[in-house]
Amino acid sequence: MSSSATAPWKQLLLNSINSNSHLKHSTYFQLATVGYNGRPSNRTVVFRGFQDSTNKIQINTDSRSSKIDDLKRSPFAEVCWYFTETWEQFRIYGKVEMIDASNSDPNKLKQREAAWFAGSVRSRLQYVGPTPGIISLNEQPSHDSLDPSAGPVDAFCLLLLDPDQVDYLNLKSNERLLFSTGRSDNDFTVPDERNQLNLKHMRAKVPLPNL
Amino acid sequence: MSSSATAPWKQLLLNSINSNSHLKHSTYFQLATVGYNGRPSNRTVVFRGFQDSTNKIQINTDSRSSKIDDLKRSPFAEVCWYFTETWEQFRIYGKVEMIDASNSDPNKLKQREAAWFAGSVRSRLQYVGPTPGIISLNEQPSHDSLDPSAGPVDAFCLLLLDPDQVDYLNLKSNERLLFSTGRSDNDFTVPDERNQLNLKHMRAKVPLPNL
Repeated sequence: MSSSATAPWKQLLLNSINSNSHLKHSTYFQLATVGYNGRPSNRTVVFRGFQDSTNKIQINTDSRSSKIDDLKRSPFAEVCWYFTETWEQFRIYGKVEMIDASNSDPNKLKQREAAWFAGSVRSRLQYVGPTPGIISLNEQPSHDSLDPSAGPVDAFCLLLLDPDQVDYLNLKSNERLLFSTGRSDNDFTVPDERNQLNLKHMRAKVPLPNL
Repeated sequence: MSSSATAPWKQLLLNSINSNSHLKHSTYFQLATVGYNGRPSNRTVVFRGFQDSTNKIQINTDSRSSKIDDLKRSPFAEVCWYFTETWEQFRIYGKVEMIDASNSDPNKLKQREAAWFAGSVRSRLQYVGPTPGIISLNEQPSHDSLDPSAGPVDAFCLLLLDPDQVDYLNLKSNERLLFSTGRSDNDFTVPDERNQLNLKHMRAKVPLPNL
């Protein structure tokens, strides 16, 4: 499960994050999962960085949210991350690991704790309120403050998306790059099987089917 | 299949479109589908308006794109549309109808033709090139121009998303609104069954699980 080797798409993504960093929404992306009855589900989440020096993408969520139900059923997700300043799209497909309060691995719990403290105290408050997704008719928040030194509450869950495939599209240059791994410890050298082409770093003009 | 009654969420969405219209990317949203082996898939597409006076959302796509394969397998999709200026998110779930060149209904073919001519001549060129999603190493575009009066090419496909559920979130006001239909001709009066609440127009403070 380790993915310490830096993937070739990672620098590309870091460049995009950097070029768009003046825009608050540049850290937001859409996460698609599959829910009950094979129903597609899609919502905006926030990029919380890479896990240490790995290729794994960190997302914070609430254990009571419906995406957790989805991921327990099927742990795969596809991120669609569109950078509005540079007109770049990253589609990132992979398996998602959930690290919640019930995790038995002390190292995983440490990662969860680090993610908790990396967020603002204000952002931690959302995990203290009533169940997410359920409307509260009580206008008063149930908690106005939280001890800044207190560790993660039960509802706090760290998600780690471990990318298997990355599909990059640049709408200014018409470049497309596909990266995929054969799942031998995240070695991003295997061509995309759907297209049967060797695409590790290939740059080419492509039609733009989506935008 | 008709959906002529204006849904209560539609005016909300039209307001958001209007408030964000100075931003080119405000017409872009992410469309999640379910592909082979139940794999979630997510990509940016462009809003092409509502179909006439209905609640159906129009999207243009290429018949050769992978989203068509997905939708042939499972015709359901969820749009996630985040408005970066007003901090609003619309999650729109529904069934997608595909109208391609092989459609036998003359009215549907007329809708497809109208969608074709509504796009710029330049935008039509993308349907003339090689298969989308497949890298072309040929730097020269195969077609430099297209007769502006020529009707839709074979690859042009109109998608119509007919919303069943709309989940609206305003990150500035902390408002959330859920709309859903019991599928009796798009009458948006039935509460969201997951939450077992009557939510047709309810406004309330909610925790914000995602952002």
